[in-house]
Amino acid sequence: MLRKERNGLNHEATWPQKTAFEAAVALQNRSLSAQTYLAQCLEQIEAREAEVQAFAYIHREGAMARAKALDDLAIQGGMHGLTVGVKDVFDTYDMPTQGGSRAFAGHQPIQDAAVLATLRRAGAVMLGKTVTTELATFPTNGTRNPLNLEHTPGGSSSGSAAAVAAQMVSFATGTQTMGSTVRPCGYCGVTGYKPSYNLMPRRGVWANADSCDTVGLVARDVRDVAFLAAEMARFPALRLPEDAIALDQAPTIGLCRTHEWERTDEHLRRAFDDCARMLRAAGARVREIVLPEPFKGMLQAHTNVVHFEMSRGFADVLERQADLIRPALLERTLKGLQVTGEIYQQAQTLARQCRQMLGDVLGECDVLFVPAATGEAPRGQEYSGDTSMNQVWTLMHGPAISVTGGYGPHGLPLAMQVVGRIDDDARTLLAAHWVHSRLQAALAAQGG
Amino acid sequence: MLRKERNGLNHEATWPQKTAFEAAVALQNRSLSAQTYLAQCLEQIEAREAEVQAFAYIHREGAMARAKALDDLAIQGGMHGLTVGVKDVFDTYDMPTQGGSRAFAGHQPIQDAAVLATLRRAGAVMLGKTVTTELATFPTNGTRNPLNLEHTPGGSSSGSAAAVAAQMVSFATGTQTMGSTVRPCGYCGVTGYKPSYNLMPRRGVWANADSCDTVGLVARDVRDVAFLAAEMARFPALRLPEDAIALDQAPTIGLCRTHEWERTDEHLRRAFDDCARMLRAAGARVREIVLPEPFKGMLQAHTNVVHFEMSRGFADVLERQADLIRPALLERTLKGLQVTGEIYQQAQTLARQCRQMLGDVLGECDVLFVPAATGEAPRGQEYSGDTSMNQVWTLMHGPAISVTGGYGPHGLPLAMQVVGRIDDDARTLLAAHWVHSRLQAALAAQGG
Repeated sequence: MLRKERNGLNHEATWPQKTAFEAAVALQNRSLSAQTYLAQCLEQIEAREAEVQAFAYIHREGAMARAKALDDLAIQGGMHGLTVGVKDVFDTYDMPTQGGSRAFAGHQPIQDAAVLATLRRAGAVMLGKTVTTELATFPTNGTRNPLNLEHTPGGSSSGSAAAVAAQMVSFATGTQTMGSTVRPCGYCGVTGYKPSYNLMPRRGVWANADSCDTVGLVARDVRDVAFLAAEMARFPALRLPEDAIALDQAPTIGLCRTHEWERTDEHLRRAFDDCARMLRAAGARVREIVLPEPFKGMLQAHTNVVHFEMSRGFADVLERQADLIRPALLERTLKGLQVTGEIYQQAQTLARQCRQMLGDVLGECDVLFVPAATGEAPRGQEYSGDTSMNQVWTLMHGPAISVTGGYGPHGLPLAMQVVGRIDDDARTLLAAHWVHSRLQAALAAQGG
Repeated sequence: MLRKERNGLNHEATWPQKTAFEAAVALQNRSLSAQTYLAQCLEQIEAREAEVQAFAYIHREGAMARAKALDDLAIQGGMHGLTVGVKDVFDTYDMPTQGGSRAFAGHQPIQDAAVLATLRRAGAVMLGKTVTTELATFPTNGTRNPLNLEHTPGGSSSGSAAAVAAQMVSFATGTQTMGSTVRPCGYCGVTGYKPSYNLMPRRGVWANADSCDTVGLVARDVRDVAFLAAEMARFPALRLPEDAIALDQAPTIGLCRTHEWERTDEHLRRAFDDCARMLRAAGARVREIVLPEPFKGMLQAHTNVVHFEMSRGFADVLERQADLIRPALLERTLKGLQVTGEIYQQAQTLARQCRQMLGDVLGECDVLFVPAATGEAPRGQEYSGDTSMNQVWTLMHGPAISVTGGYGPHGLPLAMQVVGRIDDDARTLLAAHWVHSRLQAALAAQGG
């Protein structure tokens, strides 16, 4: 039903059911007021927040005042009137930033993260802070998957994925250090985009593991994330061309089962094979890509890098507030301190080697198509899911965009991702848009 | 005279005139108490701070309480009783962090930067916050070069370089995005170490340009920075071997005039040639290295990268506090917004290519030896000096360590740097230690 509404065929569809891009067009030409749009977002929050628990903080009055001001002002920029869910590890000068941690309960920063200031300047309305797992790691904070409340939305950007999937906001910000944007978005059936490392400014975003931390985007479809990324990164070329959806030029896609294939379940695997057929049928040139031998070490390398860097990075919390950290995270942090500098550097050296190889590995392919999760979102709220399909690609530093590749036994999405060369985000987004559109059409045809 | 005292031959020498490593040994075996050591540092501050202006904040009472506690406790770790000057862009839970900017006047963070928490845990005493140029960019904040008060200490880590040169602290933290650690240390005749990118955790350190920002170290000599880096990065292998000073194995050094050679003045050039002779005479294998053609674009590439990233990163300050930013910085920030995403990505692509080349460029060489400044520290306090000898090496992401290569017409140091392959910090430190020791000995022999 969600899918049907989102196709825009339902005449009764409210604006938050549509894409941010569609809403932006209406807000820009003032056929839609910022206050009306916000009211519909707040209604949706009213309807679903009690069960979904996507928000750590809702800035109702602030957002209403801002929407009223926007309606009284000239158009401020491309984001005019769009509503944003801000992951609670982005500093906000007008909302607390608590990082899903008791150690930061009630903390009020004095400034905005850079990307948020840029969005505000372009007219965006900050609607609230979305739930993050504890310090953007793994202990969960109660958010449920809007597609099935018995299942996790994934993490660490739990609330961002859930808020967009539940159509409460135009879009949301996330971060990814392991798989924290792409995986939850995949679980919730929305589009998660992890840009190339350092494509987005990180000022004011809480660090987890510096050499992997990336600002991510959560939205309704690929056009949306491209549109938002262009604004947030101050990089207009990331926007999809107006006619991208009609583009006849299919991408060349490297189908890649990765060295982590055996971690996926049978449903994911079947969906992956179905996707290959659907993409070929839609006109893509599809090649089978086997990653070279050194890539076998990348999953462990990423784990070593993140555990080492994260444990060092949390030194102050460990030193002064260890009692406020949940035991599982404390244990992992202390364990991370046992990763030696030598192991860490070996991991970083391998990562550099694999990054240098990727261009040749892709060859004529525009992008790779790989699983984004091992299966459907797990049942329950305690475990945010297996990150192993995401870690290698985060360490590779290139762009990754989630797409729904099918549905599992609980009717939940089976997530794939389109992965590109480092700093080749514009091409990767374009290819992902093609893949997303064609798979959606093919899956809808199957469903009907 | 400073040099003479530092040689430790003067029986009257106080502890802060010695290296951090020497003080650490005495503090560890309790032949020196933390309170005595701190008192001597405070005396030195009393004697020189009025003219040098190295500190933005001095935490006298806090440091005294801490030193007393340390004397009453078992040895806490390798930093037991050492005193630290903290650049004022590192968050500190017990001291304001103002970033040299009116926009952050009186700002009190709730936590410590990760590297500081690690140092405290190891027993370090935080003595105060050292002056930074405005937001770690270029507008200066009044610090003077302790070697000659009419001259700049350089920037942005102005106070850190000055505090160490004036023997007020055991060591200090810095950052480097353009040349903000290596250059001021070079100007002040102390050792500045910019580690490989991401070797040090950045959590709690204010971002400037993410893809270049690096935590730096300021100390008396190479053994000191290696000793400190091992603690701060949790990377014991960075420490120099005990017998490093006596090592007979001279490094193979690539003498490299770089594509920015024409920016250096005659004094620097003469000193560089003298260094080549001295290093050969001391037994180093010295090769002439010419950087490949693509490196010619690296200086402009770095400027584009930093201006683009910095301008994006300062979005919140621009949006809400532009009136508190000094006009020159405001102008540069607005100008940085004109760097396009395409130009930025071309610069990053070039940087990746050059990084991949460097291993072959160095060949059998352990390290490169290149100028670290264009000449002596400029006269006056307004201009913190030419960064062009540092920028390429910051963008290369490898380690760089300042060494004094001679003295100019005002008797101020002519700074060189030892530069290594990315993540090859241990070897680079060892080579820099050899170079520093041999050049000091040769220069002292000349001076005598």
